Amino acid sequence: MRVIEVPSQMREIVLSERHSGKKVGFVPTMGYFHDGHLELMRRARAECEIVVVSIFVNPTQFGPAEDFEAYPRDFERDCSMAEKEGVDYIFHPNREAMYPHGFQTYVEVQELSKVMCGASRPGHFRGVATVCAKLFNIIPANRAYFGQKDAQQLLIIKRMVEDLNFPIEIVGVPTVREKDGLAMSSRNTYLSEEERKQATVLYQSLERARKLIESGERNSSVIAGEMEKVISSAPLVRLEYISICDNIYLRELEKLKGEILIGVAARVGKARLIDNVVINVQ
Amino acid sequence: MRVIEVPSQMREIVLSERHSGKKVGFVPTMGYFHDGHLELMRRARAECEIVVVSIFVNPTQFGPAEDFEAYPRDFERDCSMAEKEGVDYIFHPNREAMYPHGFQTYVEVQELSKVMCGASRPGHFRGVATVCAKLFNIIPANRAYFGQKDAQQLLIIKRMVEDLNFPIEIVGVPTVREKDGLAMSSRNTYLSEEERKQATVLYQSLERARKLIESGERNSSVIAGEMEKVISSAPLVRLEYISICDNIYLRELEKLKGEILIGVAARVGKARLIDNVVINVQ
Repeated sequence: MRVIEVPSQMREIVLSERHSGKKVGFVPTMGYFHDGHLELMRRARAECEIVVVSIFVNPTQFGPAEDFEAYPRDFERDCSMAEKEGVDYIFHPNREAMYPHGFQTYVEVQELSKVMCGASRPGHFRGVATVCAKLFNIIPANRAYFGQKDAQQLLIIKRMVEDLNFPIEIVGVPTVREKDGLAMSSRNTYLSEEERKQATVLYQSLERARKLIESGERNSSVIAGEMEKVISSAPLVRLEYISICDNIYLRELEKLKGEILIGVAARVGKARLIDNVVINVQ
Repeated sequence: MRVIEVPSQMREIVLSERHSGKKVGFVPTMGYFHDGHLELMRRARAECEIVVVSIFVNPTQFGPAEDFEAYPRDFERDCSMAEKEGVDYIFHPNREAMYPHGFQTYVEVQELSKVMCGASRPGHFRGVATVCAKLFNIIPANRAYFGQKDAQQLLIIKRMVEDLNFPIEIVGVPTVREKDGLAMSSRNTYLSEEERKQATVLYQSLERARKLIESGERNSSVIAGEMEKVISSAPLVRLEYISICDNIYLRELEKLKGEILIGVAARVGKARLIDNVVINVQ
C-alpha cells in the first residue's frame, strides 16, 4: 500500500492503472476508520482491481462553530486498517494542496442542500460537493463508494455527478451498525457511556417507523409523532429533525408512496448524530 | 466533420481519440461565428490533432432581462465555417441534454465573479463556470481555447480549473479586431450603422490608456479619467465601467504595477459591449 500526498501524482497513478485496463474503486473519507469505512473498502475491493482511499478532514464542510479541530484523527491506525483490507493507495493531501492561496471555487447542489442537515449546517454540503468534485478530478476512478448512513450526502453527490457530467459511478453502501443498532460514526467517540446508551433511540425510532409502515400506516405526521415519542424517552437526546421525504428530491411527503427516506438528526452531548432508513412503500 | 448531439457519445469519441494517442483541442462557443471564433479554431488546429467545437447558447449565463432569445444563431453557417477551418467534431447538444429536469448544481468562482461584468450581470459567471465544468467532463480534451476579449471569463475559467483540479490546459487567444479596432463580438450585429461607428471609442480609450502608461503614467484615476473623456465623445455609448486591476485576482489598483488588465464595458443601442487590454507595467 502506498501513501500519496500530491494531487498530480495521485492522478497520474490512477490514470496509469486505468490505462493498463484495471478498474479503479475510490473511497473518499475523513479518516478515523470504523467498520462503516471498512465496509466501503471491502465493497470496492470486491468490485475493482485497484482501491484508492482518500483521508482528508475537509475544512470547507465544517461550519465556524463546528468540530473541525476536534474531529478525531489517527492516520497511523487508519493506514494499518486500510492495509488489512487490501487497499492499494491512500491519498492523504494536506490542506494547502487542496485549498491553496486564492482558492475561491465552490460547487453547490442547490435545493438538496437546503433541507434536513443542510438547514442547520449552512455551507456543509457545499463543502462536501466541492471537495468531491476536486477528488473526482484527482482520482478519476470508475466507481466511488459512499455510505448510506449519510443519505442526504449520497443523494447530493449523485446529483452533482449527473448534473456536471462527472464520468464516475456512485455506489451507496448500506449502513453498518453496532449490535444495539446505533449507526457507526466517527462522532460516536464523543459520547459518554450514558449518552452512548441513549443514542440507540435514533435507530429505535426508525424501526418503529418501519413497523408502522409495514402495518399499513401511510400518514407521515402519525409516523413522525410516534418516532418523537420513542426519542423523547431518552432525556440526553435532543431531537433536531425528523424528515419523511422522497429519496430523490428530498421533498417532504404527507402521504407515503414510492421510495421514501426517513431521516433523523439529534444532538447527544457534544455529538450531532444522524441516521436514516429507506423504505419502498407500495 | 461530424456533428454530435449526445453528451455520452461525445465523451466516448474524445476518449477514443485520446486513447489512440491524439491530442484533443476544444473550443467552447455559443455559435454565430466571427473571425474571433475562427482564430480559436485555427490555434486549436495548429496545436492539436483533433479539434472539437461546441455550439450551445447556454441559458444559465443569461439574466432574465438579457438577450438569450435574441442571441444570434445560424447553425448551418457555423458548420460550414468550422468545416473550412478543419474542425473534426461539432458538439451541439440541446437544452434538455445539458439541463435535464431536476438540474440544480452550479459552480461558482466567488470573488472573481462579483466585480466588473459580474457586478451588472449577477449569475452570469456562475452560468459560464457551470457549463464549462460540464463541457470539460463531456469533452475531456488536452486543451481548451478561450478568447482574451472575455478577459474576466478567461480568468474565472482558469481559476475554476485550478481550484477544482480539472485536468485541462486553458489557453487564452488574443482578441481579433475589425480594421478600425472594434473587438469582434456576436453582439456587434445588434448595432446600427451609427452605433457601429461610435463603438470604436472603447478600443480608442484602451489605446489612450496604453499610450499614457507608455509615457510613464502610473496613477489609475488619471488613466480612467482620460479614458472617460475618449468614451464621452461618442453620445450613443453609455459607459458601464472602466476597471484597472491586476490580471489574476481582478483587484482594483491605485498605482499600476505588474501585469494589469484594463477592462471597459458600455451599452451601445441594444448591445452591451466589452473590451480590454493587458499590459505589463514595470
